[in-house]
Amino acid sequence: MGEALDLPRNEDGIAAAAGILKQRFGEKFQTGQSVREQHGHTTTWIVNQAPDAVVFAQSTEDVAAIVRVCAEHKVPVIGYGTGTSLEGQVNAPAGGICVDLSEMSQIVAVHPEDLDCVVQPGVTREQLNTYLRDKGLFFPIDPGANASLGGMTATRASGTNAVRYGTMKDNVLALEVVLPSGEIIRTATRAKKSSAGYDLTRLMVGAEGTLGIITQITLKLQGIPEAMSSARCSFETVDAACQAVMATIQYGVPVARIELLDEKSVEAANTYSGLDLPISPLLLLEFHGSEASVAEQAEIFGEIAGDVGGSGFEWTTKAEDRNKLWQARHDMYWATLALRPGAKGISTDVCVPISRLAECVTAAQDKAAELGLLAPIVGHVGDGNFHALPLIDMENPDEVAAGAAFISWLNDLAISMDGTCTGEHGIGQGKKPYLRRELGGAVSVMEAIKAAIDPDDIMNPGKIVG
Amino acid sequence: MGEALDLPRNEDGIAAAAGILKQRFGEKFQTGQSVREQHGHTTTWIVNQAPDAVVFAQSTEDVAAIVRVCAEHKVPVIGYGTGTSLEGQVNAPAGGICVDLSEMSQIVAVHPEDLDCVVQPGVTREQLNTYLRDKGLFFPIDPGANASLGGMTATRASGTNAVRYGTMKDNVLALEVVLPSGEIIRTATRAKKSSAGYDLTRLMVGAEGTLGIITQITLKLQGIPEAMSSARCSFETVDAACQAVMATIQYGVPVARIELLDEKSVEAANTYSGLDLPISPLLLLEFHGSEASVAEQAEIFGEIAGDVGGSGFEWTTKAEDRNKLWQARHDMYWATLALRPGAKGISTDVCVPISRLAECVTAAQDKAAELGLLAPIVGHVGDGNFHALPLIDMENPDEVAAGAAFISWLNDLAISMDGTCTGEHGIGQGKKPYLRRELGGAVSVMEAIKAAIDPDDIMNPGKIVG
Repeated sequence: MGEALDLPRNEDGIAAAAGILKQRFGEKFQTGQSVREQHGHTTTWIVNQAPDAVVFAQSTEDVAAIVRVCAEHKVPVIGYGTGTSLEGQVNAPAGGICVDLSEMSQIVAVHPEDLDCVVQPGVTREQLNTYLRDKGLFFPIDPGANASLGGMTATRASGTNAVRYGTMKDNVLALEVVLPSGEIIRTATRAKKSSAGYDLTRLMVGAEGTLGIITQITLKLQGIPEAMSSARCSFETVDAACQAVMATIQYGVPVARIELLDEKSVEAANTYSGLDLPISPLLLLEFHGSEASVAEQAEIFGEIAGDVGGSGFEWTTKAEDRNKLWQARHDMYWATLALRPGAKGISTDVCVPISRLAECVTAAQDKAAELGLLAPIVGHVGDGNFHALPLIDMENPDEVAAGAAFISWLNDLAISMDGTCTGEHGIGQGKKPYLRRELGGAVSVMEAIKAAIDPDDIMNPGKIVG
Repeated sequence: MGEALDLPRNEDGIAAAAGILKQRFGEKFQTGQSVREQHGHTTTWIVNQAPDAVVFAQSTEDVAAIVRVCAEHKVPVIGYGTGTSLEGQVNAPAGGICVDLSEMSQIVAVHPEDLDCVVQPGVTREQLNTYLRDKGLFFPIDPGANASLGGMTATRASGTNAVRYGTMKDNVLALEVVLPSGEIIRTATRAKKSSAGYDLTRLMVGAEGTLGIITQITLKLQGIPEAMSSARCSFETVDAACQAVMATIQYGVPVARIELLDEKSVEAANTYSGLDLPISPLLLLEFHGSEASVAEQAEIFGEIAGDVGGSGFEWTTKAEDRNKLWQARHDMYWATLALRPGAKGISTDVCVPISRLAECVTAAQDKAAELGLLAPIVGHVGDGNFHALPLIDMENPDEVAAGAAFISWLNDLAISMDGTCTGEHGIGQGKKPYLRRELGGAVSVMEAIKAAIDPDDIMNPGKIVG
């Protein structure tokens, strides 16, 4: 656990490419150990595999130039945004050049009448939303971390309000991509829909930088709703909470967020965020719409929750109360880690058909208990996606083994329920063994596509396929 | 115009494959001229290029067996649903075997609690919706024709309510596909969202059968809304109507349909459907939601329309009135043809950013007038997509040339506005020249993918790429 395979290194090629890039990029080309390690994998249990050098790109032309040098010398190229990915996506198992895109952070254009915008990949979602606020617009995808939009695109990120607004695949209209050859393409236009050939936009979204480096993104935007309200409700069991979720969605309530915290997560939130929630499975909700519509939505949910024994139902449109609740939800990762200082949290990310959700969550709780693991659960339950976060003492080999067993067991359980091992974190290095268990022969098609577009395997090698 | 390139035929291979398939499929294997021509292209101006034989597949295993025989003999395989595509998608320019999937018409499973279902490709959208009605569910994508869901998937179809529910790309969860090798893969699971590797589902949606034959589809479903209302409103100009559309969408009204008819289309609808609408640009709308919500939506739209000089605004929740209005909209293709009996209607399908829509529609009207063409316009204007339908006397070479000039000019105009030559009809044979003008070097990536997955080019050759 925590091991990541090393791949063969092309030492001569790396040395040659580094020499050329150093010449061209001057102080934007860096090889200091701390910079390199900071660009390897720092946020997960997967070991850090640092690149040989980091280049801070300023433009699409910079990226194309870097890629052309690397292509000529058959050297790996790894795109980097904010480094918040969770499955080893930015590690460099064969060494190579990391292209840091964080300085490509311009908001190129906003088209309010078309509800879209064009951004460079280093723009973060908070930066974009701050910029959009006084235009009455927002970009809805919210994975928690203040990730870069390039990284969110590359991992097909989603988060708490995907239940209403979809994932990155639903919110990217077009991409500019530097291919492994250094050629720059554009995958689509600003038209809201298109049947113009193969959907290269959706192929690049979620490809984790293995088919090219994203250098510009055209995103759909939303108008800021007239009203927002938040609600919370406690349930006796996870099953009852999931029943309420299913009924709410089947009823057609256009809920914007519907999040589950299990007992342990509620306990963590109370301690970390100074709340006083009943220690019991909890749903947090958010509704967007007109004043009348958010009131109606909350009311319908309240009735549904009451039918399955929900208690302590409260809702509010007050921004202060709403923010407190959602800040607590956003802080859950840190709140959970605080339950066991010094332990490493290893995020799982299964997503199952919603009819199997209660069974899957409950089984995960039981399995963690059986293995002696503390593994609080939070979930984007409107989509059937949840994260169990086993807290592991990495110095204790038995515990590490139990953690590994838990992850493997949970991924296989989700797959057996016609679900996926990853709803939003991606495959990276960590989930490669599960991809084939989940999709079988389809993985060979992915390999064929990878080989066709990147025959020398220079684009983020060792991730997803290969 | 109307010409479709012939491709080289592999006569020996076709004869050998036909012999084997005849043996295996008996009376499900047919070579009669009328059957073959009915499976070539009948609904468009593109010339009919019939396949050499048609096999009526009964199962995925049948499809895999047919494809394996064709792969061995390097013979084209063309999937066929209901034959309602508009760009030559089912033509056989190199001959070969048509796989008719219409008898694979089972609804395999419906999962109401997950809001999804699994269908065979020959199921039509009306068949599915009839089946779902008493479960309180519906499948929202409505391209007008009672197309097969396999065909709708393959062309990335959409239609009148894409503005709310998206296109086929947004409503397909997973596919079973027979690859050009005859191997059967599944592209995804029933999870509502996934980051598990390359998005092969979205790659196959819209690939027009050039990468494989779709043999099973997992679709998202919607609950039938508690209430539906329809509205209509006339405007003095196309520009005013488009201003109302933009404002409605920017305001966040979750309109389910918002359709434009220009003056000529209104005239056609009045005559064909016995209506008495004012001869002026018209918007038809539909709202879905709770009783309160549809009333609120209609009211907001009414105010917006009033601000830009809309007149004759009426709305209704009466099913009878709603159906009459929407039946007229659905009959527009026939109503338009009836304006000039004997003429061929040639559908265009551009889609532009909504801020450019009024300009694009008005320019199309002016250009048609300049060329002496009668070309009524209807549009899915919430998405910026519209169809001008020049009515051409195919016996008059000057008129045919004018029609061709109009189409070419309009596609180029849309592309110059950062739009697409096809919002929902696909590339097929008819739009291949425009694909490269629109997407440039990205087409080479499509060609590389095609070559990697279908190296012998047996899957629907001559469409999209190649």
